Amino acid sequence: MSTVSEVKAKAGLEDVVAGESAICYIDGDRGVLSYCGYDIHDLADTARGVSFEEVCFLLWHRRLPNRAELGDLQTELAAARPLPEPLIRAIKSLPAGDGMDALRTLTSILGHYDPDAAAHSPQANYRKAVRLTAQLGTLVATWARMAAGGGAIDPDPSLGHAANFLYLLTGTRPTALAARAFDVSLVLHAEHELNASTFAARVAAATLTDMHSAIVGAIGALKGPLHGGANAEVMKMLLEIGKDSGVERAEEFVRAKLARKEKISGFGHRVYNTEDPRATHLRRFSKSIGEQTGQPQWFAMSDRIEQVVKAEKRLNPNVDFYSATMFYSLGIPISLYTPIFAVSRISGWTAHVLEQYANNRLIRPRTDYIGPPYPQPVLPVDQR
Amino acid sequence: MSTVSEVKAKAGLEDVVAGESAICYIDGDRGVLSYCGYDIHDLADTARGVSFEEVCFLLWHRRLPNRAELGDLQTELAAARPLPEPLIRAIKSLPAGDGMDALRTLTSILGHYDPDAAAHSPQANYRKAVRLTAQLGTLVATWARMAAGGGAIDPDPSLGHAANFLYLLTGTRPTALAARAFDVSLVLHAEHELNASTFAARVAAATLTDMHSAIVGAIGALKGPLHGGANAEVMKMLLEIGKDSGVERAEEFVRAKLARKEKISGFGHRVYNTEDPRATHLRRFSKSIGEQTGQPQWFAMSDRIEQVVKAEKRLNPNVDFYSATMFYSLGIPISLYTPIFAVSRISGWTAHVLEQYANNRLIRPRTDYIGPPYPQPVLPVDQR
Repeated sequence: MSTVSEVKAKAGLEDVVAGESAICYIDGDRGVLSYCGYDIHDLADTARGVSFEEVCFLLWHRRLPNRAELGDLQTELAAARPLPEPLIRAIKSLPAGDGMDALRTLTSILGHYDPDAAAHSPQANYRKAVRLTAQLGTLVATWARMAAGGGAIDPDPSLGHAANFLYLLTGTRPTALAARAFDVSLVLHAEHELNASTFAARVAAATLTDMHSAIVGAIGALKGPLHGGANAEVMKMLLEIGKDSGVERAEEFVRAKLARKEKISGFGHRVYNTEDPRATHLRRFSKSIGEQTGQPQWFAMSDRIEQVVKAEKRLNPNVDFYSATMFYSLGIPISLYTPIFAVSRISGWTAHVLEQYANNRLIRPRTDYIGPPYPQPVLPVDQR
Repeated sequence: MSTVSEVKAKAGLEDVVAGESAICYIDGDRGVLSYCGYDIHDLADTARGVSFEEVCFLLWHRRLPNRAELGDLQTELAAARPLPEPLIRAIKSLPAGDGMDALRTLTSILGHYDPDAAAHSPQANYRKAVRLTAQLGTLVATWARMAAGGGAIDPDPSLGHAANFLYLLTGTRPTALAARAFDVSLVLHAEHELNASTFAARVAAATLTDMHSAIVGAIGALKGPLHGGANAEVMKMLLEIGKDSGVERAEEFVRAKLARKEKISGFGHRVYNTEDPRATHLRRFSKSIGEQTGQPQWFAMSDRIEQVVKAEKRLNPNVDFYSATMFYSLGIPISLYTPIFAVSRISGWTAHVLEQYANNRLIRPRTDYIGPPYPQPVLPVDQR
């Protein structure tokens, strides 16, 4: 360490470029989010958009797959979706509780049973990325189903990743609109540069620890309310307002909250100064899924709340604001919103871990010491 | 994000000051390591030195405890040392394998059973820090004992933390010298500013996730060979040289390795340009424990290797070089060296997590995008 060369960063490393990456480009001033050069609006488009599986391939390979490559990946994911038997036993043995705690523990247990557990070649790590992506969906859906008293369902190899998740969770094959809405939500949540969970994964990976360890760290970071969880808060607020209260009551409720200087979840973002481009698509699905499932009021209330917060606070909705009502209308329990974030983000996490391994440097910053002056005398215990 | 205000850091955030901290002061040019202002040489001193329990109190409170405070902490640690019954079952159910994988999973499971699992007050988090510190020792020792086919032993409330660990591991109460040597090694490994595992813990904690999640992330990061594990490599090298080979053979072996441009584990450090001050004490115990247990050759060989590497590479031994032979002479299996690092560092990890919670800002840096140019057209799958 050479003191003269130290650079003091802003708190939270805000605006500090921690390294190079070929995965995600964000322009917070123009509202651009892109994965490996592909604009999120194109990837999530109704007509031209791609599936979550294609996004996984994109994040891992920096280009979209051709049909043969996509078929191979779908086959690999389908093969990896069923959980090893000890995982079913582990799910049964866990006490009831938080879904992210369960996901953290179960993903850690997966590491013990991975066929490449002791391997660290790029090929082995790629296989781990595929398996983890397949397995996290099964884990979350199966854990939730069993926590609610149901039995585990076998994945259906004929269904894609999004449809499989909804099937494993509910026991019913989803409608085409529900499957596509959930698929788009997985596409939208897949990757977001050095958000805290991805950064936690890279800090761990930079010690050359194994993929599962890095991902378990990311899950732990995602659990924090400053990262995951805001869409759950949004939905709780809407339920508190009440499903039959109407848009006027929603406006009144939010204005009262603002008057009390309370935060409205689902607005504002550390990186975007515009509308979060993901919100654009989730808004659309919040409306259409709400209409299809006979609960259009959630979108109507959300729409009014957006207008109020925009006018009063000049804050834009982020990814969490409309995913709340979209997930709710799909029948997904609120307690699963953050675990579902992980079901998607595992693709980005693993892409970043693979990228870190490929060009590694230990991530080890310094602190500015502000504690008791050095040196302090060590007094005998009876003289303290 | 405002592009003009971005600061591009050196790879691995080297020399970047990521934030303020009152816990650890290191001067790598002068070889100073201090916890809350107390020099490591004073804390580890034979006559005036302190116990690991006193260091825990120091890291959590920024001052050494008086006798009553120390007694209270010892009582709290003793109460928390026995593992909840489901953890014993979990240990039995895990497949044989890596100790760090086991520690990661078991610590994650501890989170489900913590009496304060759902609480996030400073008091609750302090209790979690105490419990985790008590429990990690029991977990590692019990896991190792059961993995070797033995039965779990109940902690002895009359023993301190270091002696308890050796007792739980071996089934025999350690000699005074062995207990003090292991205690000093816990003191020396307790804290080291923003090493990768501690930084991983703070990145997670900064999302306001729970203590167990942050610590599980730290354990995952410590598993990496660029962080933990170097002392295991040192011992494997010494065993490869052979216990009866003598110092001349050790010198020859290391010179041949250097001639092949191979790295010698246990030398050099990202932060220190001097001798790692922890090595000074571990060298001393490597010698005395080796003599006491009738295997002085390990120290003799290490001493010769140090001379060669210093002369040839101008590299100083780090914390890992002499801990290898000290742990080996204490009868600790090599596979436990990194888990034991965690048994000590849990004190520093929890101190940093508590400090992060007390003055929090989400840790969220940026990347420099070097991927495919934006925007790429999304072609239909058959045209790719």
